[in-house]
Amino acid sequence: MADVNKVVLAYSGGLDTSVILKWLQETYGCEVVTFTADLGQGEEVEPARAKAQKLGVKEIYIEDLREEFVRDFVFPMFRANAIYEGEYLLGTSIARPLIAKRLVEIANQTGADAVSHGATGKGNDQVRFELGAYALKPGIQVIAPWREWDLTSRERLLAYAEQHGIPIERHGHTSPYSMDANLLHISYEGGILEDPWAEAEESMWRWSVSPEQAPDAPTYVELTFACGDVVAIDGEAMSPAAVLAKLNALGGANGIGRLDIVENRYVGMKSRGCYETPGGTILMKAHRAIESITLDREAAHLKDELMPRYASLIYNGYWWSPERRMLQAMIDASQTSVNGVVRLKLYKGGISVAGRKSDDSLFDASIATFEDDAGAYDQKDAAGFIKLNALRLRIAAARGRKA
Amino acid sequence: MADVNKVVLAYSGGLDTSVILKWLQETYGCEVVTFTADLGQGEEVEPARAKAQKLGVKEIYIEDLREEFVRDFVFPMFRANAIYEGEYLLGTSIARPLIAKRLVEIANQTGADAVSHGATGKGNDQVRFELGAYALKPGIQVIAPWREWDLTSRERLLAYAEQHGIPIERHGHTSPYSMDANLLHISYEGGILEDPWAEAEESMWRWSVSPEQAPDAPTYVELTFACGDVVAIDGEAMSPAAVLAKLNALGGANGIGRLDIVENRYVGMKSRGCYETPGGTILMKAHRAIESITLDREAAHLKDELMPRYASLIYNGYWWSPERRMLQAMIDASQTSVNGVVRLKLYKGGISVAGRKSDDSLFDASIATFEDDAGAYDQKDAAGFIKLNALRLRIAAARGRKA
Amino acid sequence: MADVNKVVLAYSGGLDTSVILKWLQETYGCEVVTFTADLGQGEEVEPARAKAQKLGVKEIYIEDLREEFVRDFVFPMFRANAIYEGEYLLGTSIARPLIAKRLVEIANQTGADAVSHGATGKGNDQVRFELGAYALKPGIQVIAPWREWDLTSRERLLAYAEQHGIPIERHGHTSPYSMDANLLHISYEGGILEDPWAEAEESMWRWSVSPEQAPDAPTYVELTFACGDVVAIDGEAMSPAAVLAKLNALGGANGIGRLDIVENRYVGMKSRGCYETPGGTILMKAHRAIESITLDREAAHLKDELMPRYASLIYNGYWWSPERRMLQAMIDASQTSVNGVVRLKLYKGGISVAGRKSDDSLFDASIATFEDDAGAYDQKDAAGFIKLNALRLRIAAARGRKA
Amino acid sequence: MADVNKVVLAYSGGLDTSVILKWLQETYGCEVVTFTADLGQGEEVEPARAKAQKLGVKEIYIEDLREEFVRDFVFPMFRANAIYEGEYLLGTSIARPLIAKRLVEIANQTGADAVSHGATGKGNDQVRFELGAYALKPGIQVIAPWREWDLTSRERLLAYAEQHGIPIERHGHTSPYSMDANLLHISYEGGILEDPWAEAEESMWRWSVSPEQAPDAPTYVELTFACGDVVAIDGEAMSPAAVLAKLNALGGANGIGRLDIVENRYVGMKSRGCYETPGGTILMKAHRAIESITLDREAAHLKDELMPRYASLIYNGYWWSPERRMLQAMIDASQTSVNGVVRLKLYKGGISVAGRKSDDSLFDASIATFEDDAGAYDQKDAAGFIKLNALRLRIAAARGRKA
Repeated sequence: MADVNKVVLAYSGGLDTSVILKWLQETYGCEVVTFTADLGQGEEVEPARAKAQKLGVKEIYIEDLREEFVRDFVFPMFRANAIYEGEYLLGTSIARPLIAKRLVEIANQTGADAVSHGATGKGNDQVRFELGAYALKPGIQVIAPWREWDLTSRERLLAYAEQHGIPIERHGHTSPYSMDANLLHISYEGGILEDPWAEAEESMWRWSVSPEQAPDAPTYVELTFACGDVVAIDGEAMSPAAVLAKLNALGGANGIGRLDIVENRYVGMKSRGCYETPGGTILMKAHRAIESITLDREAAHLKDELMPRYASLIYNGYWWSPERRMLQAMIDASQTSVNGVVRLKLYKGGISVAGRKSDDSLFDASIATFEDDAGAYDQKDAAGFIKLNALRLRIAAARGRKA
Repeated sequence: MADVNKVVLAYSGGLDTSVILKWLQETYGCEVVTFTADLGQGEEVEPARAKAQKLGVKEIYIEDLREEFVRDFVFPMFRANAIYEGEYLLGTSIARPLIAKRLVEIANQTGADAVSHGATGKGNDQVRFELGAYALKPGIQVIAPWREWDLTSRERLLAYAEQHGIPIERHGHTSPYSMDANLLHISYEGGILEDPWAEAEESMWRWSVSPEQAPDAPTYVELTFACGDVVAIDGEAMSPAAVLAKLNALGGANGIGRLDIVENRYVGMKSRGCYETPGGTILMKAHRAIESITLDREAAHLKDELMPRYASLIYNGYWWSPERRMLQAMIDASQTSVNGVVRLKLYKGGISVAGRKSDDSLFDASIATFEDDAGAYDQKDAAGFIKLNALRLRIAAARGRKA
Repeated sequence: MADVNKVVLAYSGGLDTSVILKWLQETYGCEVVTFTADLGQGEEVEPARAKAQKLGVKEIYIEDLREEFVRDFVFPMFRANAIYEGEYLLGTSIARPLIAKRLVEIANQTGADAVSHGATGKGNDQVRFELGAYALKPGIQVIAPWREWDLTSRERLLAYAEQHGIPIERHGHTSPYSMDANLLHISYEGGILEDPWAEAEESMWRWSVSPEQAPDAPTYVELTFACGDVVAIDGEAMSPAAVLAKLNALGGANGIGRLDIVENRYVGMKSRGCYETPGGTILMKAHRAIESITLDREAAHLKDELMPRYASLIYNGYWWSPERRMLQAMIDASQTSVNGVVRLKLYKGGISVAGRKSDDSLFDASIATFEDDAGAYDQKDAAGFIKLNALRLRIAAARGRKA
Repeated sequence: MADVNKVVLAYSGGLDTSVILKWLQETYGCEVVTFTADLGQGEEVEPARAKAQKLGVKEIYIEDLREEFVRDFVFPMFRANAIYEGEYLLGTSIARPLIAKRLVEIANQTGADAVSHGATGKGNDQVRFELGAYALKPGIQVIAPWREWDLTSRERLLAYAEQHGIPIERHGHTSPYSMDANLLHISYEGGILEDPWAEAEESMWRWSVSPEQAPDAPTYVELTFACGDVVAIDGEAMSPAAVLAKLNALGGANGIGRLDIVENRYVGMKSRGCYETPGGTILMKAHRAIESITLDREAAHLKDELMPRYASLIYNGYWWSPERRMLQAMIDASQTSVNGVVRLKLYKGGISVAGRKSDDSLFDASIATFEDDAGAYDQKDAAGFIKLNALRLRIAAARGRKA
């Protein structure tokens, strides 16, 4: 076992991380610094202070990171239209690098030699936390209690808690699911979801009404983009976090953003997950729409071809890596012209684009028109275009090659 | 002007291609062979016979190609999860290579030295028809009247028709839009759509009810896959065309598959298009779902990374090309295990996956579980996994590199 | 024929472009501005002045662009390790965007409404010139005489020259080959090279001795890199053009940089080309060597995977495009740490790396060593690394999948 | 420690694997089956029998796998033009999957429940052996003594050998380098190579003369390809292994195939390696040359873009994976037309292509020619080709976008 003097723990204030807090003190005989962040998960973070104090913690960090989260992580990711495996909007993945960064910064500030987290040994989050921590502070020690201890069942964990006087709250929203939430999404795993043939229960979902329960009339909304990011909703300028919060409210009310998938974890297994990403789902649709009129074709295609790789990097925990930064440089270089307004219709789980306009639009009605275009485009050029594009195919066919 | 003896014309029986027919006879002094295919566009093809006869055509080909279309073109494309520019399901694009193939085959049968089509000089279809024709018969001549003649406005076209006794039907469904339909989709361009800020009118859509008009209760459906293709619906075995027709009916009734986008044409301009692809939209969702439990992670990611390129090939007209065939070989090699059943919920424009199961499933609940897994997975392995994946990042950070 | 008042001609002073000059004056009745650039082709550019004057040209631009050429075009390209089709170092391709840029700038300065060049209608250079010109000045007219006139044989061209008093120099180095040269390379096409089975004659090559004639003793050279570019040779700081000139001398003397290939042109046909790129060949080897110790693995792999696409963009004439700039942003973002010294051995056509060192080296002998590493790397971590990487394969095999 | 009854050991007969053999017997108390393969490493394999017998082994497998190695592993890899990190021909990597396959097959035959190998915990070979073994037999146990035991220095190993009566041969070719050899290559690591600034000593190289010592006259050779593989040399039909042996002899005699690089290992560190791959280097050059006249442009480009990924898969040990098989299907689909003859000139370390010809050639001199082509290609088509390719760039420039 490593020699540890002080460890910074990503602390939610809940039972599991409270047990970890105690276990770290007992097992490593080290001081624990707690770090609790408001990333928009929808729960108070301040109560974590008293809990930590009660467990003897002297250095307690409680921070509102919502703006930084959306501005520096969520928005850059949406510029890429990042979707993992065709469906997942990376809601959990994108929060981890920010937490890793703050853990390391606090370790530097407090002179801690280790960080710790409450992610299990089977999931992706351990990888994301730890790759980030190692990339930012290569000599850091990482303690992952779930990979080390013998509290491998809920019973043992509860027993340990009771033994050590850690209060076990039995509040209303106890859930059969393992959940994670931040301003971008809430996720559900475990329970009956472990059977991929079983449909998720309506009662599971928390952030959105069902499409069935959504209003019978559509909602229209206009998003204003600057350099690929939403800067105003219905004409009202807003901060990044305010944008996402507002879109979550709009999406949730209209039954938008539910997803039920089986995904491939970086650690090698498939897992079933359900997600609610109301605002992100709207954002994605809108961003593609504004890009559709402002982005050059080949720029857009280059982005599309590299998107799956970019998404995998984030999913796998490589936000803090040279390859992610290289891709981001490429993506951001394309977004200076992604400005304008998108009008969307939200209705019972669906989003449709009702309009897009931009001073930077590359859409030219005079060229695309079915009517006479006054010479803007010479149709005869198309003959040469086709002929030369066909040349290699014709030569091959003339040699008897099967097309 | 080229010397042409006989030309095979892709003939719909409508006004435009009737004018073309006459124009070819007049301009080239050549014999015209007509080819009219039922690709599921929803209009009778048999009436084209009388019209062609009336215009003096002796060799008339009228064919039902629906099964071939779905089996050999639509299904292989869906194995790739092909989507152009993140949204378009390639409904028009995928029909063109089949028409090109039949045009060439009929040219070979009838001894024709040219083919002709009614696509304009600004669109993608001319490219698709002609690349296909050249790839399959390199010495073929292609006549694209819209690029050659001076009938450049609707008025002139009508005047020519009147002049030459071509009947101008003024039936009910005259539309302000340029439309194309086949079993996979119906498309709309032109008219008010040329303003990307203008929302499409409800009256434009033909194949689907609006989400608002769709039933208030969801519809559940089960699709059975074999080697990546749907072979049965709700347990009933069906032919490829029957599958797609059934899914169109289900989707259309539930307001599914409407799309409104601005896309980038191969010839260089942006254009606004609206599409209804009810069955295809369901098929895409279901195919991803069955792949999610049956396809290896890296196989799926490889497919995802190459998908945009594959989609562009089809969009741009390169179905009949060595690179498309190479990609198809790669894709098809992944589909032997894509077998099983997907259960979907259709509701007011939305599709959600309600379940997926397969004898070829790679989902292993015993490993992914949050409960004790009886040793199927050793969590301690994750520490080494992370450590070695982090090694390069740690070395770089230790050298002072910015992460 | 377009209405043209003034045209800027890329003018070499040779017979062909002199005929073009005259032909433009006669055919378009327009004023001609000449632009002659020293790109390191090894021929005097100043004589072009008198020739142009004699043909009545009033605005004559003669410029030494060697530094700009290497600094802003060659070096950025080599940061990408760009090679077209596995072999070609893009010597001709990379000069064209600079010429296009100057043509347009001169057109803007002189109020010209057109540009013209001497590239034929079968090659890539017409595409590179014209895409560049259109991208930089969308309303420009382009006159490509080889695609327009009827001087389609050497005889006719000579007859036209004689007729119009254009001097036909019959100097020593008349060549059976079509050649192009700049500081990066000299190329040969045509003549016996049109038979790909025929070996190039020794007498064809101009810039390098044959390996057989090269010195019997090796030459060692040290290149110093800063941010991916060579800034010094054998410790002596040099400008970009001086670096390339020096490497050409070293390479040429040692028989380095000859290449004989069949390549695929953008316009659709295969063509045989021979190239001498002495300095560039050294540069490529050295750049890979310095990257090998200073670049992160995934950064290097990302560059490698995108390199063929980047190379194709340059080959096809898309230097001035958003997608090239996006890729360049990505590549350049990786080069800040590509600093250090590479020592090379040059011998009879071959280059081997004799050493590489860098303050930014990521090579860590203490970790890679076969000897005891004092705990820098825990071999046991490898077991977990392998186990989790194997997990998906094991699950599949356990389900009976063929590996 | 796992419970093992019988283990199949990849046994070379040398000191290290003899110590492993003994250590397995002692540590696991299990029976050891030895497997020794002739992969063309240039050492007798039969002596391993007596050594194994002396150590009490009852089941001894000694096999000549050279033909299978070249036919089923080396040749398929060369169809892809696979090069890792721009330089490395994957000589070690490609042998591992065959050994893994035989280890597993022998385990199945002999009822063994484990396999073992002599690769260290820092290198790539452990990964390659073990991924292969797990992919082919998911329940197999893998014993990697170098990761488990405490014989972590040469001294301890020798002491163990002496203690257990394992003969320590002190023959002539003791080397300061860690070496690996098979019919494709021989590699060197360690010793002074751990300093990347140190030039490799001439005395290290074993398979090739130095370019300086190579003959003063060039050697010409003709290779005949069928479906991408060499089937004859100078007109003489040969088996795959005979082809590679012959090319090794030709290359080695002419100083061809030496390489000195720093590469990125999968386990995260950089390492210096020197390689001799005489035959493979010739094969690569020749394969590109025959492809240059027989392969379609886009097919070639698709291969080039995916090559780095394919090479990484092999380097990282994923031969036995669905993604490698998918890529192989794609590559092989392109090779049916890769037939013909390539003529090469070998001289003092260099290879140049002296000619290529094929009945499947797509090179068409009548089109590429600088002379009149009798209408095979209409230069005017190029104008339209360029115009439409430029359209998106022109529209963007007209909107004020920076090119």
